[in-house]
Amino acid sequence: MSEFSKSSLNKVVRGPKRAHYDRALINEILDSHFLCHVPYVHENTSIVIPTAYGRKNDTIFIHGSLKNRMLLSLLDQEKVSLTVTHLDGLVLARSVFHHSVNYRSVVAFGTPRLVNDSDEKMEALEIITENIIAGRWAEARIPNEKELNGTLVIAIEITEASAKVREFEAMDELADQDLDIWAGVLELEVNAGRVVKNQDCKEGIETPASVKNFKFQNREVQGR
Amino acid sequence: MSEFSKSSLNKVVRGPKRAHYDRALINEILDSHFLCHVPYVHENTSIVIPTAYGRKNDTIFIHGSLKNRMLLSLLDQEKVSLTVTHLDGLVLARSVFHHSVNYRSVVAFGTPRLVNDSDEKMEALEIITENIIAGRWAEARIPNEKELNGTLVIAIEITEASAKVREFEAMDELADQDLDIWAGVLELEVNAGRVVKNQDCKEGIETPASVKNFKFQNREVQGR
Repeated sequence: MSEFSKSSLNKVVRGPKRAHYDRALINEILDSHFLCHVPYVHENTSIVIPTAYGRKNDTIFIHGSLKNRMLLSLLDQEKVSLTVTHLDGLVLARSVFHHSVNYRSVVAFGTPRLVNDSDEKMEALEIITENIIAGRWAEARIPNEKELNGTLVIAIEITEASAKVREFEAMDELADQDLDIWAGVLELEVNAGRVVKNQDCKEGIETPASVKNFKFQNREVQGR
Repeated sequence: MSEFSKSSLNKVVRGPKRAHYDRALINEILDSHFLCHVPYVHENTSIVIPTAYGRKNDTIFIHGSLKNRMLLSLLDQEKVSLTVTHLDGLVLARSVFHHSVNYRSVVAFGTPRLVNDSDEKMEALEIITENIIAGRWAEARIPNEKELNGTLVIAIEITEASAKVREFEAMDELADQDLDIWAGVLELEVNAGRVVKNQDCKEGIETPASVKNFKFQNREVQGR
């Protein structure tokens, strides 16, 4: 199915022109990031925690410590959501009122499930790791049984999702277009910065391919 | 008061060594970003929406359309939270298990209040705008009465907050330190990219100072 169906949960009410339900677009946005924000409820207050994720088909995997309050709380919920946000630029209109940001975001809803099976758990950790930095799984020492047992992995089977995208120039009121004020977009990018080798790293070990090839995927979204 | 007191809401349970309650540090993290993630509850499911913010003392201002479901929902809550996350680097240990990220994040809790007073509303919009891009308020056309009336502004008076910071090299098990695997940190930065002038921008208008001077504040956090 190429589109997520709209329910009262994922149907975008504000700014429906920027809303998308297309699976390919949603997956592309999800696959270009590795940090999502997941809300859970504690003492009647919703709290959001950033956490790494990886995707396989319609399943999102997240992980953490066995005692992670957020993860444990999610397992008590019938449906959970997660949000992924790319901040792509500042939209500077002539009027403050029409200032905005260019962004690509996804809100996905799904049913949480504790991953118990060792093979699926290992696969989930590989998917998360490779989504953060491709090629690293093959370079590093993979989890042993004790570490696997010490990790909580949750699969969220996506049932509903929507994307919102704004990616165009500033839009002003007609009456403002003649003002002597600059209008445009200041693009923002996430880039790899310095590579800082551990002080205790063995001598003679070269920077690995995963690090050399790393590129945060600021790529353009297709198909709008 | 230089520290936020710890309650069951803001007391960091996982990774307490990375937790901070220091006001100066929390404010520095808040002031280095302009996008927060705010959760609200809709149909028994928590949903997170990214939104711009600005800070004045212990008050965080957010804004949106009068019909914004998230904002309206927040006003029904006694206490709301918001999360700000800086992703500063990938921590690549020898073992997958000890992979991590360097980050600075704040979770703040507070009481939401609708801003009705025109002067406070205008000030809030100036604070949000200037927090996104310093100097822009003085360059752009500020909101007129109609626009002000069409904007919903919420003040969140912070009552509790905590920061979590990880900013050091990879930490491996002693037994793994002899492996022939590279370990270190790949830093990530948010940078200004291209400046794209609006096609309908009047000729002869130069790139303004706010754009020329813009720098996303990837700055190092002091005082840990």
